[in-house]
Amino acid sequence: MSVKTILLDHGSGGLASQQLISELFLKHLDNPVLRDLEDSAVLANQEGNIVFTTDSYVVDPLFFPGGDIGKLAVHGTINDLAMRGAKPYCLSLGLILEEGLRFEELERVIISIADACREAQVPVVTGDTKVVPKGKGDKIFINTSGLGFVDKDIDISSKNAREGDLVILSGTMGDHGITIMTQRAGISVQGDLQSDTMPLHGLVAQLLRELPTAVHTLRDPTRGGVASTLNEIADISGLTIELSDEALPVRPSVRAACELLGLEPLYLANEGKCLAIVDQDHAQEALAVMRATEEGKEAAIIGRLVAGKTGRVIINTPVGGTRVVTPLHGMPLPRIC
Amino acid sequence: MSVKTILLDHGSGGLASQQLISELFLKHLDNPVLRDLEDSAVLANQEGNIVFTTDSYVVDPLFFPGGDIGKLAVHGTINDLAMRGAKPYCLSLGLILEEGLRFEELERVIISIADACREAQVPVVTGDTKVVPKGKGDKIFINTSGLGFVDKDIDISSKNAREGDLVILSGTMGDHGITIMTQRAGISVQGDLQSDTMPLHGLVAQLLRELPTAVHTLRDPTRGGVASTLNEIADISGLTIELSDEALPVRPSVRAACELLGLEPLYLANEGKCLAIVDQDHAQEALAVMRATEEGKEAAIIGRLVAGKTGRVIINTPVGGTRVVTPLHGMPLPRIC
Repeated sequence: MSVKTILLDHGSGGLASQQLISELFLKHLDNPVLRDLEDSAVLANQEGNIVFTTDSYVVDPLFFPGGDIGKLAVHGTINDLAMRGAKPYCLSLGLILEEGLRFEELERVIISIADACREAQVPVVTGDTKVVPKGKGDKIFINTSGLGFVDKDIDISSKNAREGDLVILSGTMGDHGITIMTQRAGISVQGDLQSDTMPLHGLVAQLLRELPTAVHTLRDPTRGGVASTLNEIADISGLTIELSDEALPVRPSVRAACELLGLEPLYLANEGKCLAIVDQDHAQEALAVMRATEEGKEAAIIGRLVAGKTGRVIINTPVGGTRVVTPLHGMPLPRIC
Repeated sequence: MSVKTILLDHGSGGLASQQLISELFLKHLDNPVLRDLEDSAVLANQEGNIVFTTDSYVVDPLFFPGGDIGKLAVHGTINDLAMRGAKPYCLSLGLILEEGLRFEELERVIISIADACREAQVPVVTGDTKVVPKGKGDKIFINTSGLGFVDKDIDISSKNAREGDLVILSGTMGDHGITIMTQRAGISVQGDLQSDTMPLHGLVAQLLRELPTAVHTLRDPTRGGVASTLNEIADISGLTIELSDEALPVRPSVRAACELLGLEPLYLANEGKCLAIVDQDHAQEALAVMRATEEGKEAAIIGRLVAGKTGRVIINTPVGGTRVVTPLHGMPLPRIC
């Protein structure tokens, strides 16, 4: 491609826009629907209820150990669909580019999106690109909206969590959040910190195939971490969630970095983990199903829903004490995803 | 609401985010699906093929005569669905806010979105909000993605345009583009310039009810204007499009402002107009159907598809001459929508 940086012209809707579409987007993301280059994609309908979601990604830096903004945008939206039990069907891709962005950087992100879509088998079928003047954006902001289908008999929602249900976390906490934070702070810590960005629709499909009715709630603890997501579930269900400190899976390198920075892994963003609230009689079975997958091999039962003060999350500490896990108010660091 | 400006905390995923959702978004956009506050919306499926689209809106200024960024985001995405013959079903709303944005401004935009959704009867069912630090965005960027359904027998696409078809434009050209330009330039012109932002799904539904097979192509000439959109259709169909200069509808105030600024209305963005490529035997009928609607009361037949040089748009001038209408390369002014 002839351009080396993104110009305002690339957002004009004229020839420069067309060039960007054909020489960059179609080159890497090509599929029959996208190739039509219409303003909307027309797609065959599928069985089941429709699931629809949207997320914008503004992570800084664009590239980080374990991933980049492109992967995050594909995985995050796929995971939002999966958390309702849906099979993801397709994505839209809305880009807001800052004038002066290096073409190479954009192409690297687009290639990463293409790879993530291919691996997840969920195509981008429609897109849009806007360019804002230098200083009015920050390199690349991405919106991915997603469309999926869920069997009419599947009903997964935060409001379905019940007293006695167990809480399963599909793997270690805080990997994404601490990776971005140490990158941003320029801190080098020992160990191999990297983002956990990963699509979870395969794990969810497996879980629902084996246990179609035992899974009451699925949530991915992204911004605000496990603590904030569980507080929301406790609020909606009107129950208390009791966590066991010793059961919480945290990678040693993440724990070390958290201690160094004075952070609590419970509040750190995850981009490849889910919380499953499961009927207590099937929780061990659900755990086994999750552990049999690559994505869920470090899954653990971390707590239980009990009667008590509505909307409260408490944690039982190893020394026999109890403390309240309050929801996050603000943010330890902005632009984590 | 207690906050007066948007803080980074409002994008944290914690309590501040929750507060923004309940005290602003739910307050104005409330509906049963949105109220669930899940990461994805689950919706009843409908008959027909699925139509899916996305668009980001970065218009500057946020508020302008005839509309604002919120209305534009609702109408623009509805229109992209309508241009495939779809009945719009629901929207997603992704906001990227700049730290320091005045809460009042945001609320004014959200109220405008709510009004536009109510009028169009297309609800926002899922959303996401990110906040970027001051100087890393520009007040408000909006992404709306849209979902609609189209009858399986309806096939509307740029590639369906045929030799002999007539080109109908649903109303005057350039109203949106010239309004934004004069606002941005701080130019005061005589007359009543205002954006034409308007949803067109009602007009399209009426057209397809009366003439389900005669309409071959529908496109809304937004960025790049009528000239760029027709060049794309000429390219895809492999035909020449011949326009009649005298037939092109332009409001006198728009023409005057264009003359003052040295602009050509054919290249200016429209946000409430469509181009319909219609079988020649039914074009008069289609024109009558459009003119009977409020949105299309100034519709006109502006040209014809003829054999000739592939992908060329030409215009016959009143003095008997012909000139080529080249596609726009870059942009007369960025951030028009």
